[in-house]
Amino acid sequence: MLGSMMERPLLISALLEHAERQFGDTEVVSRETNGGLHRYTFRDLASRARRLARGLAGLGVVHGTRVATLAWNNHRHIEAYFAVSGSGAVLHTCNPRLHPDQLAYILNHAEDEVLLFDSTFRPLVEAVAARCPTIRHYVLLSDDPVQADPGELLQPSLYEELLAVCDDRFAWPEFDERTASSLCYTSGTTGNPKGVLYTHRSTVLHSMALSLPDTLSLSAHDCVLPVVPMFHVNAWGIPYAAAMNGCKLVLPGPRLDGASLFELMESEGVTCSAGVPTIWLSLMQHMERQGAKPSTMKRTVVGGAAMPESLIRAFTERFGVEVRHAWGMTETSPLGTQGSLLAKHAQLPSAQQCAQRAKQGRAVFGVEMQIVDGDGKVLPRDGKSMGELMVRGLWIAAGYYKAEANALRDGWFPTGDIATIDADGYMQITDRAKDVIKSGGEWISSIDLENAAAGHPAVLMSAVIGVRHPKWDERPLMCIVKRPGHALEKQEILTYLAGKVAKWWLPDEVIFLDQLPLGGTGKVQKTDLRRQYSDVLVARQPESHAAPTKSA
Amino acid sequence: MLGSMMERPLLISALLEHAERQFGDTEVVSRETNGGLHRYTFRDLASRARRLARGLAGLGVVHGTRVATLAWNNHRHIEAYFAVSGSGAVLHTCNPRLHPDQLAYILNHAEDEVLLFDSTFRPLVEAVAARCPTIRHYVLLSDDPVQADPGELLQPSLYEELLAVCDDRFAWPEFDERTASSLCYTSGTTGNPKGVLYTHRSTVLHSMALSLPDTLSLSAHDCVLPVVPMFHVNAWGIPYAAAMNGCKLVLPGPRLDGASLFELMESEGVTCSAGVPTIWLSLMQHMERQGAKPSTMKRTVVGGAAMPESLIRAFTERFGVEVRHAWGMTETSPLGTQGSLLAKHAQLPSAQQCAQRAKQGRAVFGVEMQIVDGDGKVLPRDGKSMGELMVRGLWIAAGYYKAEANALRDGWFPTGDIATIDADGYMQITDRAKDVIKSGGEWISSIDLENAAAGHPAVLMSAVIGVRHPKWDERPLMCIVKRPGHALEKQEILTYLAGKVAKWWLPDEVIFLDQLPLGGTGKVQKTDLRRQYSDVLVARQPESHAAPTKSA
Repeated sequence: MLGSMMERPLLISALLEHAERQFGDTEVVSRETNGGLHRYTFRDLASRARRLARGLAGLGVVHGTRVATLAWNNHRHIEAYFAVSGSGAVLHTCNPRLHPDQLAYILNHAEDEVLLFDSTFRPLVEAVAARCPTIRHYVLLSDDPVQADPGELLQPSLYEELLAVCDDRFAWPEFDERTASSLCYTSGTTGNPKGVLYTHRSTVLHSMALSLPDTLSLSAHDCVLPVVPMFHVNAWGIPYAAAMNGCKLVLPGPRLDGASLFELMESEGVTCSAGVPTIWLSLMQHMERQGAKPSTMKRTVVGGAAMPESLIRAFTERFGVEVRHAWGMTETSPLGTQGSLLAKHAQLPSAQQCAQRAKQGRAVFGVEMQIVDGDGKVLPRDGKSMGELMVRGLWIAAGYYKAEANALRDGWFPTGDIATIDADGYMQITDRAKDVIKSGGEWISSIDLENAAAGHPAVLMSAVIGVRHPKWDERPLMCIVKRPGHALEKQEILTYLAGKVAKWWLPDEVIFLDQLPLGGTGKVQKTDLRRQYSDVLVARQPESHAAPTKSA
Repeated sequence: MLGSMMERPLLISALLEHAERQFGDTEVVSRETNGGLHRYTFRDLASRARRLARGLAGLGVVHGTRVATLAWNNHRHIEAYFAVSGSGAVLHTCNPRLHPDQLAYILNHAEDEVLLFDSTFRPLVEAVAARCPTIRHYVLLSDDPVQADPGELLQPSLYEELLAVCDDRFAWPEFDERTASSLCYTSGTTGNPKGVLYTHRSTVLHSMALSLPDTLSLSAHDCVLPVVPMFHVNAWGIPYAAAMNGCKLVLPGPRLDGASLFELMESEGVTCSAGVPTIWLSLMQHMERQGAKPSTMKRTVVGGAAMPESLIRAFTERFGVEVRHAWGMTETSPLGTQGSLLAKHAQLPSAQQCAQRAKQGRAVFGVEMQIVDGDGKVLPRDGKSMGELMVRGLWIAAGYYKAEANALRDGWFPTGDIATIDADGYMQITDRAKDVIKSGGEWISSIDLENAAAGHPAVLMSAVIGVRHPKWDERPLMCIVKRPGHALEKQEILTYLAGKVAKWWLPDEVIFLDQLPLGGTGKVQKTDLRRQYSDVLVARQPESHAAPTKSA
């Protein structure tokens, strides 16, 4: 028996309409590509999004058309977010840090017909344009006619001219909530990138979960700054959630260094943020150098990689910023877990609270998780059993764009992460399935080793990879970037680690580097390290290695 | 083009499964009908709900079967909430304050097959049982075999015996999210009650909106006490939202007086609550008498009737409890609006903040509102134009159970409330369409008069009704209950009101009563007052009334 409630679809356009009606005066501030600050309101954003929708319709964009963007976090990009999806077209946000070959691949795979791009990325666009026959219109996100001068390869339209010819009389269409709203390709390290095609339903439900008090906790009193790029899993959904809840929204543009972020947070009164750990590391370094503390920041959500406990402690205890670890991936929209504490943790000493916060957190409502062994058997939620993390839920991908097979096993999405889950539901990533070091049939967690090293005062960053070993198949190699002005030798760090991890986990070799290779979203690219160092142990004399034993 | 996300339904059973997995240790405490406190966890609740689902299946409850309850807010009632809906059956919560004729009507209209009831309501059940042929099983919500003794009319089963024969191995079924989950009849004052049939989808979406920071703000650190009865619009959705967010849940049973509530709030550490204004009035009176202040309560959502600004100020300024006015009705699940402040109100003096809080608030995401005139023309959002409030959204009724026509006008539900909406979206109820006083073609708001009177120190409660007048059709009559120990005469209150409302709004008569007639949910029953007093003016000599003029 069906109920008697209205059947209305969950649509992204409703988020913007809600913001315009209830939070019309609330500001959206963005650092533009030219360095200036742009400032307007949700009312202005809504009006311009309607004009853009009309402008795009004039370019032949219809229901289902793929419209690509190559843009920073700025006001024109968020206009495109709402205008493209709101029209029923598909917003394809491209990562500008992709290699031109990969970029050309995804533009062709998506069959994008329009590409909106920031002036920064004009060289990249010119490098791929000749290889992208489906793109009929290039639109430069600018108001500067000089920037839109035709080059040899490209005659872009000017975004502001596209808007200038339209007024804002436009009613967002209604359609099936399962309609594709946006498309984001995973920056897969093997094979071609794969596209995740989000729906209006998944996006709106994800926004609600993201806004809940135990997740990012977004209210009309908040000012939120998404440091995570809008070309990376929809900036973790923050642009949508800000509209839903009437948060003041601050978009940082291209300046993501610690000094620029701190200045923007202070001048705009940012209360909450979200980004990857490397961002918070650089912010902390800036604050330490300046002896500064944030005056309005209350909390941040951290994801994309494990945040070292030492960094969590610094933010919590020294800067008064609550760190909520989250876990997710492109295929999970990305919110899978959040790591806010339970009531029973309230009385714990700060150090224990921070240890709890260093876990990846509990599944948010809407997402279910389990861990399975190699045979697909579900493992106990005991905080010890390690298995592959499987997820399912309201905003989890069932498959990839234009892929024939769905990506699921028994209805669950296999994440490729190795994890434990405890009795309270706290999940902890032990490693990526591809990063876990398989030493003599046993597993060594690269992440645990990195976290242990992070506590040493001379270690700025570290990355552990499995490298080939003639006897044990793989053994750990640790790459370290030292904190400026600090000295550190191999034996000192091994001695330091010896008290923190099992003896047979100790790296066989330690290498000191000036920097680690970072990908487009700030994550360490272990594939690059593996490419360079995978043979360092086998290239040596075998007698230089003591055989590891598990008995230690 | 459809997206590639998993298609999973929004189901009530997922709320309980989530609570069991993530918040298994979190407590559910309830005041039982016998006066004792019952205490267990979400893990226990989930296990017993599965056993109940099996027990009900044994009684022949299948997908779509209507199962009625007559119960207080207690642990067995919440077990029924999850077990009945989770099974795909329909939970029909009956208001025990209904007249037996009305109760028999709704039990027959719903075609309930099972009735679960608290011992308190046995006399009521016995009064209607003979008239309810569809009910095949009566189940007493008790573990006391003596209470289940067969009477002349009734041989109820004992709830605990129903559970005792089952273990908890039960997997919640999956089905269409539009499936009916619960049924609540409006306590309409005219005509027969009408049933609103909620869906799993509407209930889960409503739970998310209720939990957002600007609504009730529910986190795993909260302890929530729904004073609103579980037989009244699903206790405003709090049982579901508590499971979603892992709040400690405190159910107050039959004791809703100020002293009992205060004691329960203090002993259990309640942080937030929800109920009608009369509940908060009685709580305030208790605290004033005792010189007490709540030590853990942070906020409460108030709805069901307008909360006088004076009461909002008392809670905010004297007791440190934030009052968030909400508006809703049975047909809106009930959450339509919430009245938390915007960032721009943060710097206002407390008195102005309280005035803002006395409005009914802004539409929550998921609900749209507009006001229309008698011809259906949409009126401006200027805070002045009065029109009938129309709503639509994700958890708004399209019609009534077994009613042929849907209840909508152009896709909008007509609320029967007269309201204004301002540029920030704040809605203010001016009156019920049926309560507004039509004096010489102009409208007088009974609620505005009541709110003005509420500021007088001698006024405990007041109710204004329109009564028949030979010349002006209707004129206002004010009924007042004086605060104990205070004296008040008609002329004094009229003088007091004269400075606060237009002169032509002043009541033609003031009557002092020992109490006002209250309905099952604590609302003043103006129909009773109208029945008794509608002729007080026409029965008099015409010369005793000065003709009102609008020029004042």
